[in-house]
Amino acid sequence: MESYRGFLALLVSALPVGFLSVLFTLIWVLHYREGLGWDGSSLEFNWHPVLAVTGFIFIQGIAIIVYRLPWTWKCSKFLMKSIHAGLNGVATILAVIALVAVFDFHNAQSIPNMYSLHSWVGLAAVICYVLQLFTGFFIFLLPWAPPSLREFIMPIHVYFGLFLFGTTIATALMGVTEKLIFVLKDPAYHSFPPEGVFVNTLGLLILLFGALIFWIVSRPQWKRPKEPDSTLLKSNCDTTERMEGDVAISSGNNTDRSDSELNNEGATRKRNSGLDDVGQRSTM
Amino acid sequence: MESYRGFLALLVSALPVGFLSVLFTLIWVLHYREGLGWDGSSLEFNWHPVLAVTGFIFIQGIAIIVYRLPWTWKCSKFLMKSIHAGLNGVATILAVIALVAVFDFHNAQSIPNMYSLHSWVGLAAVICYVLQLFTGFFIFLLPWAPPSLREFIMPIHVYFGLFLFGTTIATALMGVTEKLIFVLKDPAYHSFPPEGVFVNTLGLLILLFGALIFWIVSRPQWKRPKEPDSTLLKSNCDTTERMEGDVAISSGNNTDRSDSELNNEGATRKRNSGLDDVGQRSTM
Repeated sequence: MESYRGFLALLVSALPVGFLSVLFTLIWVLHYREGLGWDGSSLEFNWHPVLAVTGFIFIQGIAIIVYRLPWTWKCSKFLMKSIHAGLNGVATILAVIALVAVFDFHNAQSIPNMYSLHSWVGLAAVICYVLQLFTGFFIFLLPWAPPSLREFIMPIHVYFGLFLFGTTIATALMGVTEKLIFVLKDPAYHSFPPEGVFVNTLGLLILLFGALIFWIVSRPQWKRPKEPDSTLLKSNCDTTERMEGDVAISSGNNTDRSDSELNNEGATRKRNSGLDDVGQRSTM
Repeated sequence: MESYRGFLALLVSALPVGFLSVLFTLIWVLHYREGLGWDGSSLEFNWHPVLAVTGFIFIQGIAIIVYRLPWTWKCSKFLMKSIHAGLNGVATILAVIALVAVFDFHNAQSIPNMYSLHSWVGLAAVICYVLQLFTGFFIFLLPWAPPSLREFIMPIHVYFGLFLFGTTIATALMGVTEKLIFVLKDPAYHSFPPEGVFVNTLGLLILLFGALIFWIVSRPQWKRPKEPDSTLLKSNCDTTERMEGDVAISSGNNTDRSDSELNNEGATRKRNSGLDDVGQRSTM
């Protein structure tokens, strides 16, 4: 129960911080910049930070911790995988539109594309994110991949997902830096104009959101317990079929575990599956 | 043995990438910029990236994985803690000198301090790093802290260390972005001058170094096995006293574990200490 309260405390810290990041980005472009539009002007560029922060940071962050929500542990793993994939799918679509906005803006204003470190890392992150989404879809969501392949890919999928989330945050901080230097001329960025201070604060909020998501996802006591049968594809949340005992007596089949695990404890935990499951459940 | 080879492969990838990052930074300031000096000019500023990348990224990265080196598992935990603290101490000193260089340069050139997101995040990271160093020294290196306090602080220490490493990398990428926009005027950054492409590549190297360090530190099979007696303070590497059996029969005292563990598996692994230890050793 104490662990459950701790989780809730973290969650009600992370969600408002993530929401505030999106809100600050909207205030930035609507109040300090020219607003939003789709005409090749800076109004179109402004969709870039709005969609990147909303999709590629806030929604990606939620997708990472969705398996950790204790009230979803009674839902089928297939449903949770679908939600995880769906959220990442939405994040991908928003990230791609964010890219289109900035390329459109650059082309309309005859500004070269892909010269900055922000653009190199950002485009690489979006490409890797799409690859990660397809890999996850074909190997973990569809039922065809053999357990041995899932077991082999899972630690890479988890690590790569978290690395991409961190890279996305670093890319956002570079983007904020770039944009403020470009647009704050009179008064200049170094004279502490309100927009500079406001958007620096947005950068800190994004960093804090990342810190909270990484803390939540790296606590073993908040992991989703293992499935009693990894091939069971239940389509909704079931409060009666899944009992404590199911988990406590689950076998060592570890190939269908939460996509949000921080590291590959597979080998160790497989050896200790019974005790381990009890240990996990005892935190709730 | 296979795991040992995998570790070596990762290590001989990470070290050259980290070394190349330092080398690229030196080439940047010596070949593309004006060189190094300590006279309040841009020569003094140039110590900032050199010392930050050397200390705050390369040495910090090595300090994070120092417990993972299998040939050090026969050394006393106290010796390894001292090396971990020493490397972090050196990193702190270099980071502080890097800060002095940039403040000196700003003051000499009448450029305001602390206006950019890079400076906000960077200074916060250095302050937190110093706090982390002192916490680690008093709680984990000195023998006075009670085991319960060590056990409570360890997951926070590990998480915070890794979060600071990630934040440092993000700060470096922001710094690179800032500096290239400020100095590349004719030819401009957007016209793909050799310096811009070269320093963007430096940014990618830093990111790759971080990716390799995070992968090494998050693999459970490369964790340092638990100590048979956490209060034993051996002063050197001992190849005869520490036997396989010592580890296999080690108790559940888990408060003196590697500072480089990615997450708090303490509770779970304590329950399964015997099997767990055997499992860890079997990967070597």
